[in-house]
Amino acid sequence: MPFVRISHTDGKPVSFGQALSQGVHSAMVDAFNVPEDDFFQVITDHTPKNGLAGPDTFLDVKHTDNMVFIQITCAEGRSVEQKKALYMAIVDNLFTTPGVRREDVFINLVETKRENWSFGNGLAQFA
Amino acid sequence: MPFVRISHTDGKPVSFGQALSQGVHSAMVDAFNVPEDDFFQVITDHTPKNGLAGPDTFLDVKHTDNMVFIQITCAEGRSVEQKKALYMAIVDNLFTTPGVRREDVFINLVETKRENWSFGNGLAQFA
Amino acid sequence: MPFVRISHTDGKPVSFGQALSQGVHSAMVDAFNVPEDDFFQVITDHTPKNGLAGPDTFLDVKHTDNMVFIQITCAEGRSVEQKKALYMAIVDNLFTTPGVRREDVFINLVETKRENWSFGNGLAQFA
Repeated sequence: MPFVRISHTDGKPVSFGQALSQGVHSAMVDAFNVPEDDFFQVITDHTPKNGLAGPDTFLDVKHTDNMVFIQITCAEGRSVEQKKALYMAIVDNLFTTPGVRREDVFINLVETKRENWSFGNGLAQFA
Repeated sequence: MPFVRISHTDGKPVSFGQALSQGVHSAMVDAFNVPEDDFFQVITDHTPKNGLAGPDTFLDVKHTDNMVFIQITCAEGRSVEQKKALYMAIVDNLFTTPGVRREDVFINLVETKRENWSFGNGLAQFA
Repeated sequence: MPFVRISHTDGKPVSFGQALSQGVHSAMVDAFNVPEDDFFQVITDHTPKNGLAGPDTFLDVKHTDNMVFIQITCAEGRSVEQKKALYMAIVDNLFTTPGVRREDVFINLVETKRENWSFGNGLAQFA
């Protein structure tokens, strides 16, 4: 039951955002055992000068104006090892397509209770 | 002390976003005992092909390109029953106006401490 | 390791968003001991009538159409006093430049585990 927000720089073809979307989702299926159809995302594009802000370097990782910010709200309960596997799978997928530098992928997880989700019809399907 | 983010598909009149806004807020007043004036929201519209991503079907709920994504950050402490009542009230309100299919309403709650809010003037009004 | 989302009304020069960005970041450096280069933000502008919703008055704080919404996801562990200092520092900074009314600054914190962050290369740098 993840909900994913992806923010990237503008001026890209539609296929770019779609590749980000698919790459993040595939990683969640592989590393977090998310069902294939549990796929809910909001993708937005921004100008690098007035919309996205990142440092040139942090923790010895060098960034460009083409950073991708990924914030994933998901259910509690994944292990540290699963989280590490997720980060690596996302970076690997986005490097392969659409070709994002590994350094430019920022990921943050927010965990919530299983009762905190409704997937339609006003039901709390996992409560 | 909720903060609500609503994401919907573009091409709608201004009244559509306003009806989503009011419908979600009224549900929070009714189900979560939120004060009428505790009303802080960000509403964004997106293209269905390059901005919102959802599955055709998940948990036997069929979705269209007109999904509405609602993410609510609120204070900790509501019961599961209150959360269920909130989801149903939101779906009922948005079905009535602006006429959103019940299946197309996705809701996620993120809970935080009461000290994690400032409603102006740099004060932590609930700390 | 904060991740900051700033939402403001549109029609402002680029320097307005940049001043919000810098003002919030400086406050985090001062009040939360965030490193200077730990600087990851998404800034969006919205129409006041169809994008941002806030009350005229809540908790005796009067708002205008020029509200600024700031949602900060950060690591767990700051004290209530640090949070109060952060709110005040943000409001002070944004009042000084770009000149936001103190009443118009809404702030919400979401806290997550240290393992919930990847700052590039698919690594969990703080796990």
